[in-house]
Amino acid sequence: MTPRTASPILVVGTGLLGASIGLALREKGVDVLLSDQSPSTCALAVDYGAGRGIEDTDEPTIVVVAVPPEFTAAVVVAQLEAWPTAIVTDVASVKKSVLDEVLAAGGDVSRYVGSHPMAGRERGGAMSARADLFIGRPWVIAAHALSRDDAVEAVEKLILDVDAVPLRLDAEDHDRAVARISHAPQVIATLLAKQLLDASPRAVGLAGQGVRDTTRIAASDAELWLQVLSANAGPVVEVLRAFSADLSDVIGSLDDVDAPGARKCIADEFEAGNRGVARLPGKHGVDTRFSSIIVMVDDRPGELARLLTEIGEAGINLEDLRLEHSPGAPIGLAEIWVTPELLDALVGELKERGWRIAS
Amino acid sequence: MTPRTASPILVVGTGLLGASIGLALREKGVDVLLSDQSPSTCALAVDYGAGRGIEDTDEPTIVVVAVPPEFTAAVVVAQLEAWPTAIVTDVASVKKSVLDEVLAAGGDVSRYVGSHPMAGRERGGAMSARADLFIGRPWVIAAHALSRDDAVEAVEKLILDVDAVPLRLDAEDHDRAVARISHAPQVIATLLAKQLLDASPRAVGLAGQGVRDTTRIAASDAELWLQVLSANAGPVVEVLRAFSADLSDVIGSLDDVDAPGARKCIADEFEAGNRGVARLPGKHGVDTRFSSIIVMVDDRPGELARLLTEIGEAGINLEDLRLEHSPGAPIGLAEIWVTPELLDALVGELKERGWRIAS
Repeated sequence: MTPRTASPILVVGTGLLGASIGLALREKGVDVLLSDQSPSTCALAVDYGAGRGIEDTDEPTIVVVAVPPEFTAAVVVAQLEAWPTAIVTDVASVKKSVLDEVLAAGGDVSRYVGSHPMAGRERGGAMSARADLFIGRPWVIAAHALSRDDAVEAVEKLILDVDAVPLRLDAEDHDRAVARISHAPQVIATLLAKQLLDASPRAVGLAGQGVRDTTRIAASDAELWLQVLSANAGPVVEVLRAFSADLSDVIGSLDDVDAPGARKCIADEFEAGNRGVARLPGKHGVDTRFSSIIVMVDDRPGELARLLTEIGEAGINLEDLRLEHSPGAPIGLAEIWVTPELLDALVGELKERGWRIAS
Repeated sequence: MTPRTASPILVVGTGLLGASIGLALREKGVDVLLSDQSPSTCALAVDYGAGRGIEDTDEPTIVVVAVPPEFTAAVVVAQLEAWPTAIVTDVASVKKSVLDEVLAAGGDVSRYVGSHPMAGRERGGAMSARADLFIGRPWVIAAHALSRDDAVEAVEKLILDVDAVPLRLDAEDHDRAVARISHAPQVIATLLAKQLLDASPRAVGLAGQGVRDTTRIAASDAELWLQVLSANAGPVVEVLRAFSADLSDVIGSLDDVDAPGARKCIADEFEAGNRGVARLPGKHGVDTRFSSIIVMVDDRPGELARLLTEIGEAGINLEDLRLEHSPGAPIGLAEIWVTPELLDALVGELKERGWRIAS
């Protein structure tokens, strides 16, 4: 398959994101040039297959700046100057402060289009890079008033070439969005993980998947996050303040749980939490647009096939299916996702055909 | 294999935990009696294979009380009275308040031994039960001063029969431990998920695995958690207050990130979070007792086998191995875990043999 992106492209900064972009584009047959202020970091990325070192005769069509947030704007400005016809994008996780700095520097900013792939790992560096890091992940394009249309389109093609999903959002909206769904959660997870320092070894031994999931991203790089949070402090503080007020309410309620309204306060927060988490798209790409029922399926050959056949016969389109079967249980559970307006019909059809619905 | 537990045992309350205990014990050949104040809930658990309904002639050796926390003590007291020779345990996630209430009620408390399996799911009810819910999970035995030794041993055998790991801890220590590694994380995850209610649909669409993991347990049942938190309010508040103070510091620092010490405050919190999360046992059972290195392995048949052979030849015992290979990359990564004192030798041996170490 011919890539949409015209070769060669240049990736400046060969850490996790830069090297992953290189790997993904090379898989599509794009010629990828790499550069990094550290020659050994660049050589590692070359070894790892993310591209080749840039040479004097090379002339990139697009430059992807993938350096730490606090250096991003300066490197973007330098690259716009170094390559007078190339389109320049960056992948920093804050967009407004980078854009402001680039605009302030002047130069041919019409060739600059900021972007941000919503993908990452707790572990950085080229050695953690993955060609499949961006598959199916949203990748924000934060164009500005002066961005040229063909520049926006070129960045969009690059995003499609790494199998990500381009999404246009202006820089301020982007920063407010990531404050809420990425930056504030990072701070909260970090502070919660800090509380584990005061746990006894026995207490730590009791840890289950809950606390593990809740604190997983606390393993993220401190220096990188300091830069991200500093550059997006306003929107992040807004979320943290709202969180902090709720936390104070819960602490107050737990302090005197028999006081009038105390239990209601806690229950309300939990109910709100239930609704909040339900807004997130599901693990398997199932999102809140769909509704589900759970059907009990006897653990006999052909039963699941029969269920799916009968749903098909009823003319009901299934959006997703998750199976769960506990070893030892004579019954499996099939969770079936459909668009909400089909839910009643599905329940009716299945009950009529003798299936047991478990919810 | 003959079960350690003498049949029949009685499970009172056939929700997630009760039905899962039934499934797991039946798999080992234990005769499991079920009862629930709701006949239809009990019938569902019977259908699901968790045991059989109790009959007049049945005489349980052990009664497992698996009802919501606020009813636990009363049901334990009633069961001690109903079965004058049976050992009675419960699985509530708070232990001190239950114990106090049972002791206050008098009766033959020497046959009561509280316990708490560190296992669960966001979704409740018998239809979510799993025979493998407890495999390898810690299960706290919280005996008290008057508990009979044979009662403690009987509960321990039951725990071993469901393939869980018994761990003795007194009620107060248990409650303090779970406040930190389960109850406080639940509150934090819930309040964070609540913040998602104010996110725009586009923002929610940007959500990645980080926020998803951080808020996953916010889907948990509000009513159950209200009971748990009310019964363990003191220890939970202690953790939440410490968290809240840290959060205020971070908010203050972000409010004026250029103030002297502001950046250091944030960096310190992140570094503490890194250390905190590192205390949790790893996903694959690898815990902080081990150290790891990452070795680059060419994507050629036999290379990984050669690596492992050479580690073996060097006399180094490997504790765990994780592989990572990005499609499209000509190199795979092997993360190798050893006890810390072997790390230097491992690095030396591998370098000498020409392997590339990537960390």
